Amino acid sequence: VTGLAAHDPLRLLGRQRCVASNLGVIVDLGCAGLEDDDLRLMAPACRAALDAMGALERGSIANPDEGRPVGHYWLRAPDRAPTAAIGSDIRRALQEVDAFAHRVHDGSVCGADGRFDHLVHIGIGGSSLGGQLLCESTSTERDPLVVHFMDNADPDGVTRTLSRLRGALGRTLVSVVSKSGITPTPMHVARAVEAAYARAGLRFAEHAVATTMRGTPLDRRAAADGWLARFPLWDWVGGRTSVTSAVGLVPAAVQGVDIHAFLAGAAAMDALTRTAEPAANPAALLALSWHRLGAGCGRRSMVVLPYRDRLALLPRYVQQLVMESVGKRFDRSGTEVRQGLTVYGNKGTTDQHAYMQQLREGPDDFFVLFVGVHRDAGDPIEIGGSVTLGDYLFASLGGTRDALHDGGRRSITIELTDASPRSLGALIGLLERAVGLYAELIDVNAYHQPSVDKHAAGAAISLQQAAVVLLTEASEPLTAGQIAREIGRPESAEVVFRALERLARLPGRGVVASACEDPAGIRFAVAPSVVGRIEEGDS
Amino acid sequence: VTGLAAHDPLRLLGRQRCVASNLGVIVDLGCAGLEDDDLRLMAPACRAALDAMGALERGSIANPDEGRPVGHYWLRAPDRAPTAAIGSDIRRALQEVDAFAHRVHDGSVCGADGRFDHLVHIGIGGSSLGGQLLCESTSTERDPLVVHFMDNADPDGVTRTLSRLRGALGRTLVSVVSKSGITPTPMHVARAVEAAYARAGLRFAEHAVATTMRGTPLDRRAAADGWLARFPLWDWVGGRTSVTSAVGLVPAAVQGVDIHAFLAGAAAMDALTRTAEPAANPAALLALSWHRLGAGCGRRSMVVLPYRDRLALLPRYVQQLVMESVGKRFDRSGTEVRQGLTVYGNKGTTDQHAYMQQLREGPDDFFVLFVGVHRDAGDPIEIGGSVTLGDYLFASLGGTRDALHDGGRRSITIELTDASPRSLGALIGLLERAVGLYAELIDVNAYHQPSVDKHAAGAAISLQQAAVVLLTEASEPLTAGQIAREIGRPESAEVVFRALERLARLPGRGVVASACEDPAGIRFAVAPSVVGRIEEGDS
Repeated sequence: VTGLAAHDPLRLLGRQRCVASNLGVIVDLGCAGLEDDDLRLMAPACRAALDAMGALERGSIANPDEGRPVGHYWLRAPDRAPTAAIGSDIRRALQEVDAFAHRVHDGSVCGADGRFDHLVHIGIGGSSLGGQLLCESTSTERDPLVVHFMDNADPDGVTRTLSRLRGALGRTLVSVVSKSGITPTPMHVARAVEAAYARAGLRFAEHAVATTMRGTPLDRRAAADGWLARFPLWDWVGGRTSVTSAVGLVPAAVQGVDIHAFLAGAAAMDALTRTAEPAANPAALLALSWHRLGAGCGRRSMVVLPYRDRLALLPRYVQQLVMESVGKRFDRSGTEVRQGLTVYGNKGTTDQHAYMQQLREGPDDFFVLFVGVHRDAGDPIEIGGSVTLGDYLFASLGGTRDALHDGGRRSITIELTDASPRSLGALIGLLERAVGLYAELIDVNAYHQPSVDKHAAGAAISLQQAAVVLLTEASEPLTAGQIAREIGRPESAEVVFRALERLARLPGRGVVASACEDPAGIRFAVAPSVVGRIEEGDS
Repeated sequence: VTGLAAHDPLRLLGRQRCVASNLGVIVDLGCAGLEDDDLRLMAPACRAALDAMGALERGSIANPDEGRPVGHYWLRAPDRAPTAAIGSDIRRALQEVDAFAHRVHDGSVCGADGRFDHLVHIGIGGSSLGGQLLCESTSTERDPLVVHFMDNADPDGVTRTLSRLRGALGRTLVSVVSKSGITPTPMHVARAVEAAYARAGLRFAEHAVATTMRGTPLDRRAAADGWLARFPLWDWVGGRTSVTSAVGLVPAAVQGVDIHAFLAGAAAMDALTRTAEPAANPAALLALSWHRLGAGCGRRSMVVLPYRDRLALLPRYVQQLVMESVGKRFDRSGTEVRQGLTVYGNKGTTDQHAYMQQLREGPDDFFVLFVGVHRDAGDPIEIGGSVTLGDYLFASLGGTRDALHDGGRRSITIELTDASPRSLGALIGLLERAVGLYAELIDVNAYHQPSVDKHAAGAAISLQQAAVVLLTEASEPLTAGQIAREIGRPESAEVVFRALERLARLPGRGVVASACEDPAGIRFAVAPSVVGRIEEGDS
């Protein structure tokens, strides 16, 4: 490796840095190991990608598989929407979110027990992660509401959050988010929360809002039951790029985040990254770097390392955004390409004490995306010698990058002046556009997700139900193989076995299993008379 | 891919599952795509690895680079320690942790404002993550103390936690963990917390405990200042395997976790995984699978997917344990091997709505380690049709695994009956032993971390200080290149530039930068008379 520092380092730095002064964002490729030729050779492809993004912004069917335009950039620049109707829909939705948050804050919308001081946000994947990042990265002790996210079908997680809210449900707002209004997980979780309100003697509808497309089952239910508010979504907003829609804005606005600054940051980054000259376009530089560092096929993983606790969710956000967008079997002409760009990471400096060992010594199969923040949010903490803990944190980032570089490992650095809502908007806009451009470079549809299965549980649950019904009526204990045949699904003996084996370990489910080393020989029973025979040693 | 279900699925399941009934742990390789031959061919290497682990447990110098034995297995079986003195040290330390937690709970040890109801744990990397996993995975609303982890050098993170504790410091216990007692990050953070106590008019020492090796600077300071307690560490415990030492046990015991059940689970798993027969040894099965699936060189990443919110930290724990242990440049004979096994992941079902898209459609460069938990911790949540949300969660795991399998993607599944302290101990024991065996298979020293740099910030901080001193006395604004030459570090112009560029963006630091497109031309000033010239347009 010829070190960056070998000759005239600062001139090289100048060529490989893109400073967006108005946004306080720097993209620094000094340690990415790019040659000047890399940018030159990729320039035509990059211009084509920028042209395609321009067409997308004008309303082309950028997601042809689903026959839809892709409109998340309009959300922060409604004047650019392809029709006046879409533009006014966006403006109206934003006004509704804004007005609702104000009414929550001034107490004119309140719960059964008074002013709302908690929000439970129910949504999964793209319906949650952007809002989580925004709320987590900006929260302070002075927020008017504390926001809790329920983003999983885990009963323990639901119970844990509900127990934290014991006695406070009458001051807790619940926001249910599902674009389709039928995704099972948020619907199951919402029912569980609704039941908790009923147990507390409270009317759920008086504490609930919905964010969904017009006319979905969730929308109709919220309308019929008289929920506090319904916020719109549109089919041209994908989950992983929905943070600038009501999906991300409702929890943020309610927590007290300046959503206008957030949207303005994203809009300003969108404007900057329409620049046709790749070297002056930080999104293009990111996309070109990803392409170059991964040889156009994700050969290197991207390790996202924000150096701030408040950005600890950023790697997961980028992971969802990138892997769901570019992890595709086929390119747009239908050729099998098995594309992907693996993303992982947590936070610095913490991770320097963990997997950094492998990054420094192990295989050259990754590059790091460092994210540094110049300013502390609160008062600086002095650690002696006119040095602050913030200086130390930033120096740790630089020292780690330089050590990786000296070992021949690549990195990209994004520096933000602060972690304000405006800067976060700019960062998210930057990443969204980089992903869009990268997908153009590798020719995949970045806007569908044909293999995200929201119903993965369905088949196994049906088999479990059928097996239990059969056993309830059976006169003999049966093996999983026998049960599978009886219910007409002989190929699913294993799924039946796993479900019944688990039920037999749970209290109160009434399933009993015989003792047998070989899974194929284990017999199950539910009917009391048959259970008795197993317990007496039938096998 | 010939599907698992093609022929006689349950018999195959039987051959590729290892059920530890006494521990409620199942390791299931049914979807790992192993052939019977894989196990047979690897059996001799596996037996050698088991022999080496036996020698390690008897006190051999298993970490030759640092000339140390490796003793984390003794921590839960002190009778097996190589000397009686070590055994009694371990027992005494456990008694001290236990007794201290009891005194905290019964109020005989308390803070200036009464009974402790918060604990701040200060430690980084291995000094924190195990305790975090243990506390996070078992916490309930009924815990006697709420535990907060400060695991980073981020002033915003420190400030945020301190502001949550405003007014409560007199009821807050602070635990400072550093094996060496000199790691900069926890020491800086501890000083910041100590200053908060001083500002609140409280004596820090009366609220503080230390966990460190005897005689370190931290130990001496805690002794001299009369801290509440000092818990011992030994050089034969590595950070990433320290969760069964005071490092993990202090926060757990104080939170109210049954640490004896936790240790018993780990000890029982250790005992089980001494089995010489690979097929009956779940740790050996894991190590062999990792070897086979990654072709002995980590060719596939391991995606760790626990299906429970409370296990959300598990992937980070496994990431640290595995990548720090096996990410090594040289094997034990000194040959460059660039080994590694990349680990990432978050939690199911959440992640099914995110990067699962790439796992299903993208490159075959990973395998999944699913972790399922049979029982809910609280009351089951019914979702209709005699089905619970826990059933749905477990079925989602199975459905996702089967979909990956049908697409030719590999996975391993660990099932736990519950997520109790005992089960967690067993799970951690299983993973520690699997990593140790895997490292034997690939012949790397799993117990050192030569490239974990706890002082990465040092050089840049020194340069920043020298640059600021120079500029304070300078009569002209200077470029980073000039400054670097003046302070005798011409090769470090870039580091100087980055530090000063940031300081110039911060309020109150007194550094001013001239306007110039080219970083090499930007001139910096600190002395007021020179600053004035820059502000008037000097460049």
